[in-house]
Amino acid sequence: MSNSMFDVIQEDIDKLNEGLIEAVSSPVDLVTEIGTHLVTAGGKRIRPALCLLAAHGGPDYSLSRLLPLAEALELIHTASLVHDDVIDEADTRRGSITANAKWDNQVAILSGDYIFARAFGLIADGDYGNYVSKRLADLVCNLSVGEIIQNHTVYHAVKDLDNYYNRIQKKTADFLEICCELGAYVGGFGKEDVRRMAEYGHCIGMAFQITDDLLDILQTSEKIGKPAGNDIRQGIVTLPVIHALNVSEEAGELEKIVTDPAMTDEMVARALSIVKATDGVEIAKAKVEEYLDRAREVLPGNLAPEIREAFVMVADFIGDRDF
Amino acid sequence: MSNSMFDVIQEDIDKLNEGLIEAVSSPVDLVTEIGTHLVTAGGKRIRPALCLLAAHGGPDYSLSRLLPLAEALELIHTASLVHDDVIDEADTRRGSITANAKWDNQVAILSGDYIFARAFGLIADGDYGNYVSKRLADLVCNLSVGEIIQNHTVYHAVKDLDNYYNRIQKKTADFLEICCELGAYVGGFGKEDVRRMAEYGHCIGMAFQITDDLLDILQTSEKIGKPAGNDIRQGIVTLPVIHALNVSEEAGELEKIVTDPAMTDEMVARALSIVKATDGVEIAKAKVEEYLDRAREVLPGNLAPEIREAFVMVADFIGDRDF
Repeated sequence: MSNSMFDVIQEDIDKLNEGLIEAVSSPVDLVTEIGTHLVTAGGKRIRPALCLLAAHGGPDYSLSRLLPLAEALELIHTASLVHDDVIDEADTRRGSITANAKWDNQVAILSGDYIFARAFGLIADGDYGNYVSKRLADLVCNLSVGEIIQNHTVYHAVKDLDNYYNRIQKKTADFLEICCELGAYVGGFGKEDVRRMAEYGHCIGMAFQITDDLLDILQTSEKIGKPAGNDIRQGIVTLPVIHALNVSEEAGELEKIVTDPAMTDEMVARALSIVKATDGVEIAKAKVEEYLDRAREVLPGNLAPEIREAFVMVADFIGDRDF
Repeated sequence: MSNSMFDVIQEDIDKLNEGLIEAVSSPVDLVTEIGTHLVTAGGKRIRPALCLLAAHGGPDYSLSRLLPLAEALELIHTASLVHDDVIDEADTRRGSITANAKWDNQVAILSGDYIFARAFGLIADGDYGNYVSKRLADLVCNLSVGEIIQNHTVYHAVKDLDNYYNRIQKKTADFLEICCELGAYVGGFGKEDVRRMAEYGHCIGMAFQITDDLLDILQTSEKIGKPAGNDIRQGIVTLPVIHALNVSEEAGELEKIVTDPAMTDEMVARALSIVKATDGVEIAKAKVEEYLDRAREVLPGNLAPEIREAFVMVADFIGDRDF
């Protein structure tokens, strides 16, 4: 995401970045080196930024009180990506070399564990109470379960849209929801405002992931830096593909392609053209707009103008992503 | 370890086993299947048993209050073994097939993460306060850092005994210390008794690991079910080997062998015979006895007789392991 929407909390983000490096420092030089590489490898800090924004203006707002939580959110995201990269045997992430490529799988697995545990250590230090700890533990459970389900259903072409929504909720929306919810909660907002911030996070998370999935279908390879149709190639079906599997006259051919782990580039291109011939892309775009409208609408009424504006910019940014 | 020493809490352990299966259950069948496989794959429950024993007789003792903590300790151990098995590409553990062999690496990595997170979820449910959460988060950090150091120094033949003690403390002793300490703490024992139980745990942990390392040198392949000298083969130097590297007239030859990743069976046999020709084995055995004496001595004075007896049996059992 563009940084401008987080300008209002840029100083907080600078402090967060210092805190992250401190959080992964260890008496063991190698561990510090690995941790520092991971937390400085181009993360956009969307999760902690949402958390800090959501806390701003709350009656209990204090940056020093919020920082351990915001750092923990970024560390959980980082650890989860480190393990994903081992699983995907990825060499680069956000333009930086991955831990498994720079060191090896064992270093990457163990430093992922270390970073997860540092996150829970920060939460204990922060003294936020059991509700926050429980929500974060459940989040990590759901992230892992979501990945297990996704990996287990690749090349299955599940035609059920609820399965898709459930999957992207676990993968993306739950995380952004928790960032907004816990930021507002620790900032001291009332129950209804916390609920509204949570729903905002859920909605932008759903919109963000549907958009991401759409980009994979619509953009050219050059633009996204990886081959278009990458999800299809990996056996992952997204909203427009599932729609086409349900409505296209060529659904049979499409299904044959997306369930074939040995599909060729030509087969991927053919699948994309079947998908694009339906109204699946339009339906997905409409769904994104629906989520973003709801996100803007559900924002609590009593936010400070510059904070509300930042949240609206986040929603606008997701809606404006280039197809 | 033999079960008899935990007879006094056998009913608690039965409840713990039920709780563990419940803890890893998920609405997703595959996740439940994996989790159940992992928590029923022959674990000896040493860590939760020490925790429950240490809590017994405390003024705040309540089994239902202790169980989430005891379960979390076993889950942290389980998750850590699951990731170790991925790293070691192990096919079996405790006679059962490993998660990476039964499913694959991605399932094993993600279910390890899931089980770690379930442990922290149980701790949040248990409402034990920040001290307990912080200790457990630090434990997971130290376990990971210990493994990273060990993996990074294989075939390095570090001749410093402090490095060895530090390594086995992180690998084994810290964990048993925390089990005893937190059991006593949540059971409501006073500060000095909690400290004593913690030291007991540390001492049996150190004794246990030194013994384990000795067995690898002294036992025949048939008896331990893996080739003797396995640590040397993997580039890991233990107390008697480090001693020999410092005092043996053949230290140069020994160092050449233990730093050679391509060492043959004959070279391992030669290394073992150089090590056995020194008094390193006797020194290690004496160190074990020293730790076990201290363990028996440091037990709090006011333990119930059957609980004290169980703790002494644990120490005796470690001392009696068959060389």
